[in-house]
Amino acid sequence: MTMMRAVCYTGAGDVDVIAIRDVPLPVPEAGQVRVRVAAAGLNRADLLQRRGGYPAPEGWPKQIPGLEYAGTIDAVGQGVTRWRAGDRVMGLVGGGGMAEAVVVHEDEAMPVPGHLTLSAAAAIPEAFLTAYDALVHRARLVRGERVLLHAVGSGVGTAAVQLCRLLGVHAVGTSRSAEKLVRLVPLGLEEAIDTSRGPFREQLAAPVDAVIDVLGGPALADNLAVLRPRGRLVVLGFLLGSRTEADLGIVLRNRLEIVGTAMRSRTHAERAPLVAAFTADVLPAFATSGSDALPLVPVVDQVFPMASLGEAHRLMERNETFGKLVLQW
Amino acid sequence: MTMMRAVCYTGAGDVDVIAIRDVPLPVPEAGQVRVRVAAAGLNRADLLQRRGGYPAPEGWPKQIPGLEYAGTIDAVGQGVTRWRAGDRVMGLVGGGGMAEAVVVHEDEAMPVPGHLTLSAAAAIPEAFLTAYDALVHRARLVRGERVLLHAVGSGVGTAAVQLCRLLGVHAVGTSRSAEKLVRLVPLGLEEAIDTSRGPFREQLAAPVDAVIDVLGGPALADNLAVLRPRGRLVVLGFLLGSRTEADLGIVLRNRLEIVGTAMRSRTHAERAPLVAAFTADVLPAFATSGSDALPLVPVVDQVFPMASLGEAHRLMERNETFGKLVLQW
Repeated sequence: MTMMRAVCYTGAGDVDVIAIRDVPLPVPEAGQVRVRVAAAGLNRADLLQRRGGYPAPEGWPKQIPGLEYAGTIDAVGQGVTRWRAGDRVMGLVGGGGMAEAVVVHEDEAMPVPGHLTLSAAAAIPEAFLTAYDALVHRARLVRGERVLLHAVGSGVGTAAVQLCRLLGVHAVGTSRSAEKLVRLVPLGLEEAIDTSRGPFREQLAAPVDAVIDVLGGPALADNLAVLRPRGRLVVLGFLLGSRTEADLGIVLRNRLEIVGTAMRSRTHAERAPLVAAFTADVLPAFATSGSDALPLVPVVDQVFPMASLGEAHRLMERNETFGKLVLQW
Repeated sequence: MTMMRAVCYTGAGDVDVIAIRDVPLPVPEAGQVRVRVAAAGLNRADLLQRRGGYPAPEGWPKQIPGLEYAGTIDAVGQGVTRWRAGDRVMGLVGGGGMAEAVVVHEDEAMPVPGHLTLSAAAAIPEAFLTAYDALVHRARLVRGERVLLHAVGSGVGTAAVQLCRLLGVHAVGTSRSAEKLVRLVPLGLEEAIDTSRGPFREQLAAPVDAVIDVLGGPALADNLAVLRPRGRLVVLGFLLGSRTEADLGIVLRNRLEIVGTAMRSRTHAERAPLVAAFTADVLPAFATSGSDALPLVPVVDQVFPMASLGEAHRLMERNETFGKLVLQW
């Protein structure tokens, strides 16, 4: 049996549960492709899973973390028409991205924009697909509307700011770091709120049509309060915890929506159309020529060798990164 | 100046603020019709407004309560093509329904089904438009799905149960009254939960695709817990209050939606298409012939003379009514 290296969590706990092990090289079935992974983005969900809090959904590797990858196709299953060996692709997985190879359905892979390295491409899938889905499908934002993006210096935040510029949506962002906010202005941030100076609600100049939230329960009341009538709150995470005490009166009075969303639990039937829409609508905007608009860029804070994954976890836990952390083989 | 009688709230408080006064008869402007009101349904919002808690939106009478009406057109404004004097119509208003006449935009009136009295028709607009909008537009329920309806013996509840049968949606209902639940079975209730016997969450046989809620904050956690993944909670009211303590973890984990909705604050631009869709899709189902399906029926608990409005308020406050209370001139 051919083997490959993969990151394995040997249990639930601190970074000492992270190991690199030899595991069987997966074989693509009909409709699937195998990708030799060059690099994989790190996500907060990987940290949650390490601590035992976020198990892989059914059908994905239980012990190998990693929710996204970029690499080169080296084998295709029966009936695959979209790709051939040697193609550079990137995409989401429900788990197992931090291995030397992943097997995915051919409809869930996306082409890597020609000018990008695979380490840069590994920073695209989770950040940009999550931001795109949240802004366009969940919050249903349209040109001229205004959105508040929390933790805007994150991978999703730096992607969302750029997508807002592409969509003609006014992006307002919060961060506890003035330095991060300053770096976001050239990416398209129109209004910056430094939450180290006070609550965002008191600093916001005008209400918004949508909030993309990762703070969670303790921010709920303020998130609802800054929405215009018929506004949408899209919840992507719970950095501050999920428990809340709030008055829902405003939800009815202003006819608000609260929408929870996550990528990982989606089925193939849901992922495939999202990937198709993103490939058609957003991927061309990564190109550096052929358009007057500024190209989209994956924002990478730092690239680590896969063997230093524990160090990358530590760095993410300190909340000091700007954009994505990427691990490469 | 020609005058008419109208209910007026002389202040905020108990039923002693209810009076009948002479006020100027309104004159229809271009595109509007004047309706001689025969009867008006009573809503909990009227009780809230009496206590000072729910002022009329801009552009509607401030002191005259009443959110729906049925009557006969007696004058039409310039350019009105849809109606003429003598037509029997019903509809929603943002206030002022409990007067001898209302003036409304011609697009917001609906024809009264031929076999119904105007007192019966006055029980249709708020209950059926709210239930239709909640089930079809907010919860996006489709044939074969399953919905939980709280306070199912209410006006909205008795309408929703019947609309579920029409839509092929399985209706589960809660009530504190076994007697009300029994009366709902012939209207289409498929599963009945008597909340005087224990929490609904413990009695529900299987999760649901949507919850139509009027209970509010204290029921939030249980409402979220009984939803299937991607389920929708539509909030129409706060019978138990709007404050809540809940864990929102499930909102993200199961990708749930919480949607607040209300009729009263909608603009003409929002009301007109809703009325058009309802007129096309639902009104024909009130007919007693021409279809194998059981006709929709407005459920009227009791009809009071307008002069007994205080008594009707008292009855609604006791939560013992089944369906609607109607006031007639």
